[in-house]
Amino acid sequence: MTRKWQSRAQNHLDRLTKPPGSLGRLEEIARWFIQVKGKFPPALPQKMLFTFAADHGVTDEGVSAFPKSVTAQMVHNFLKGGAAVNVLARHTGAEVRVVDIGVDADFKSLPNLIHRKIACGTKNMAQGPAMSRHAAETSLKTGIVLAEKATQEGATLLGAGEMGIGNTTAASAITAVLCKAPVNKVTGRGTGVDDAALAHKQKIIDQAIRVNEPDSKDPLDILVKVGGFEIGGMAGLILGAAANRIPVVIDGFISTSAALIAVALKPAVSSYLLVAHQSVEPGHQIALKHLGLSPLLDLDMRLGEGGKARVRS
Amino acid sequence: MTRKWQSRAQNHLDRLTKPPGSLGRLEEIARWFIQVKGKFPPALPQKMLFTFAADHGVTDEGVSAFPKSVTAQMVHNFLKGGAAVNVLARHTGAEVRVVDIGVDADFKSLPNLIHRKIACGTKNMAQGPAMSRHAAETSLKTGIVLAEKATQEGATLLGAGEMGIGNTTAASAITAVLCKAPVNKVTGRGTGVDDAALAHKQKIIDQAIRVNEPDSKDPLDILVKVGGFEIGGMAGLILGAAANRIPVVIDGFISTSAALIAVALKPAVSSYLLVAHQSVEPGHQIALKHLGLSPLLDLDMRLGEGGKARVRS
Repeated sequence: MTRKWQSRAQNHLDRLTKPPGSLGRLEEIARWFIQVKGKFPPALPQKMLFTFAADHGVTDEGVSAFPKSVTAQMVHNFLKGGAAVNVLARHTGAEVRVVDIGVDADFKSLPNLIHRKIACGTKNMAQGPAMSRHAAETSLKTGIVLAEKATQEGATLLGAGEMGIGNTTAASAITAVLCKAPVNKVTGRGTGVDDAALAHKQKIIDQAIRVNEPDSKDPLDILVKVGGFEIGGMAGLILGAAANRIPVVIDGFISTSAALIAVALKPAVSSYLLVAHQSVEPGHQIALKHLGLSPLLDLDMRLGEGGKARVRS
Repeated sequence: MTRKWQSRAQNHLDRLTKPPGSLGRLEEIARWFIQVKGKFPPALPQKMLFTFAADHGVTDEGVSAFPKSVTAQMVHNFLKGGAAVNVLARHTGAEVRVVDIGVDADFKSLPNLIHRKIACGTKNMAQGPAMSRHAAETSLKTGIVLAEKATQEGATLLGAGEMGIGNTTAASAITAVLCKAPVNKVTGRGTGVDDAALAHKQKIIDQAIRVNEPDSKDPLDILVKVGGFEIGGMAGLILGAAANRIPVVIDGFISTSAALIAVALKPAVSSYLLVAHQSVEPGHQIALKHLGLSPLLDLDMRLGEGGKARVRS
């Protein structure tokens, strides 16, 4: 991209009644938004937030503080509007859409859910690939198509959030492979495991990488071997959004692991990303450094649903 | 205060559908708000933001990058709704009230302005006291009465903002005296002076402290010697709000210098304060450390009007 729109935005900012640059990163965001859109003045963003939910076979190894069934419970909660992401999204007028891309539950009777179930959870990555190559491609396509549809419906700013018990394990594995970082540097406590469980989680991730030998040069292979359906869905959303000049707010460690996959597939999409928040998960910082992105907020949060997207409106 | 309401709030937070503590500082703010209010569940905050404007005689010494007349221009801009604070306050539904507590301009014809002019700016602190003891008391009372009135009108969360060309000079002097910090450690570029002007600004602050010998044990004396009317107004607003169990969001270096005065007068008010933002002014960090407060955001901003109050809603 040329910097033409950035300069145009800065010229406007410098004509406003404030000392030049005094709004700091808010000016950076304004420049970025206008550069991405390629339009001045930009319309106010129509915000749409996709929360992708899926289960993870690796929970069989006891890597999470919560049972797998919590994923399905939270999907019900998102649809009722009772989760943190709903509350925070209401504050900023963002629409929340919930996508079942692989939850281990029967949701047929839920009309407000976007039904894109690929399977009832991934397979246990500690024993073999999490999914087939076809399933990985389907997860990416699902996100791409949702981004296309959102654009047609008028959305001009997307958010990528997720829910999936066990998915910090997948995100840590992806980050370790793609950023070539040691597993113990990118693995944290997720929703809150203790010291012994953390050591066990690291051991399981090491094992998953050893067993599957994901090819660090092949992002699709990484998604197949140690990924998750929701991670593929978010990676696709980013790819589909960028193709339509729609910026995407990513929110936390899991959506950042999806960004790692998307950027590895198509480096140019990184300029469409805004990182809402620094997660307390140690792998997040390593993944962001790899992407060259700097988060806007640091509020000691560790929840991915998509809630932190609000601050960027 | 007892911690009763904090525990009550935490019990509620821990029953919500999210991992305990996963909303990080948002949970801290919720606990704090409920503790301050002494009520559960709390009503959603009715937000009122006071932007106090005043001029500073020390601008005669060339301490600012902008001429004094900009203070009056910005008052017009605030009233028209065209300044950064207006835009940011609209996002969060906060009402902005603009108080002339000492601008060097004739505003008689402005109906939407709150007229509390004490004088047309302070005197030049480099030559003698910025104001009389009576004027300092009046500035405090002005803020106290405005907080009382706001409470009666139903406000449940106040914000303290300001406008005053030259007021980083006053804030730096207050911080140096109250926090017993070297002038060069608490003095920054304000709205953007260059190296030579920064050295000159530090020299002027040193001179003001030497000439006036403010008593570091007497906060009113500090306000008299090196303060500003808007700083006294914000200190009064904090005192009046705390007396009514109304929390106050402070925003930037100047309002934090007002908090230094208020807390020195009445230490208990510090538990009513929430700091929106880390300013790039070096004195801000020193003042916040003195107050034991930690800012919520760090977005490289350097504008005080009150705009950063929005994120705390």
